[in-house]
Amino acid sequence: MTHIERLGVSKRWSEIVIHNSVAYWVEVADAPTLDARAEVVQVLGQIDATLVRIGSDRSRLLMIQIYLADLADAPVLNEVWEAWTPAGHAPVRACVQAGLSKGYHVEMVITAATGGET
Amino acid sequence: MTHIERLGVSKRWSEIVIHNSVAYWVEVADAPTLDARAEVVQVLGQIDATLVRIGSDRSRLLMIQIYLADLADAPVLNEVWEAWTPAGHAPVRACVQAGLSKGYHVEMVITAATGGET
Amino acid sequence: MTHIERLGVSKRWSEIVIHNSVAYWVEVADAPTLDARAEVVQVLGQIDATLVRIGSDRSRLLMIQIYLADLADAPVLNEVWEAWTPAGHAPVRACVQAGLSKGYHVEMVITAATGGET
Repeated sequence: MTHIERLGVSKRWSEIVIHNSVAYWVEVADAPTLDARAEVVQVLGQIDATLVRIGSDRSRLLMIQIYLADLADAPVLNEVWEAWTPAGHAPVRACVQAGLSKGYHVEMVITAATGGET
Repeated sequence: MTHIERLGVSKRWSEIVIHNSVAYWVEVADAPTLDARAEVVQVLGQIDATLVRIGSDRSRLLMIQIYLADLADAPVLNEVWEAWTPAGHAPVRACVQAGLSKGYHVEMVITAATGGET
Repeated sequence: MTHIERLGVSKRWSEIVIHNSVAYWVEVADAPTLDARAEVVQVLGQIDATLVRIGSDRSRLLMIQIYLADLADAPVLNEVWEAWTPAGHAPVRACVQAGLSKGYHVEMVITAATGGET
């Protein structure tokens, strides 16, 4: 039977699940802000923190599915995103508009390979 | 070449696809109801049935992406969900509002590891 | 450390990421059209082209998550989709309505096994 590792398990969810060298997790802002740009920066920072936690790094991201509460924030997302994405190692990305809990601008579903170059 | 197993194949979709010890499937209520709570109970019951079918169990769920037709149903979802999720083995969970076919309250996209403890 | 292969890498995304014999990618129409049917045909054709590019084929699709800008296009999607899906090898499929960039009818998130029968 393949091994499953779970980090940050609560009654509602695990913060991270790892199986077959693939990590799955979801990020919304720990502290949602009125400013979409600040919130995207925050969420990408949380992804960095999670990557460190699992011993991986930005170059190991496989796919990120992004839900924006308002597609009008896409240009801001793209600007912050492109500065954050490691050259030559960008993940696959989907981005659509969906309804999020009140006050949130963005939710990201992340798939990454474990293991890092550092 | 890696092996792919498909269960319940129709012209439109397979009910379950298994590859590299990971099972993928989607659940909507077999019999959608006016009551969101009853429909969530039903969908989670269908997930249980699918887990039995593939010889897995709730403790092997990796990630569930939930689409609610109305985010106002989130508290009901959470209540039923938390009673259903096995202590210490919750999957990663995303939940956003999206448009579903008329009459449906919820659609879930499930990723689970095959193999079980039973 | 597991190997990751990226094809078509830009600052914003990779067109395809391959890891552990699984390919991940996203398709929207290269040339969006006013006609939903023509756009679905186009996107499925792009999937075929990507499958060729990674040495796979339609029978190796694992899961496709479909976002329609308007669920009223579902009957058209289903008609084109069922003619395209290889008999006995349909992937798992989710389909919900979500907001897409202006002018686009459909976005698809694809997971496929690498390797093919040809």
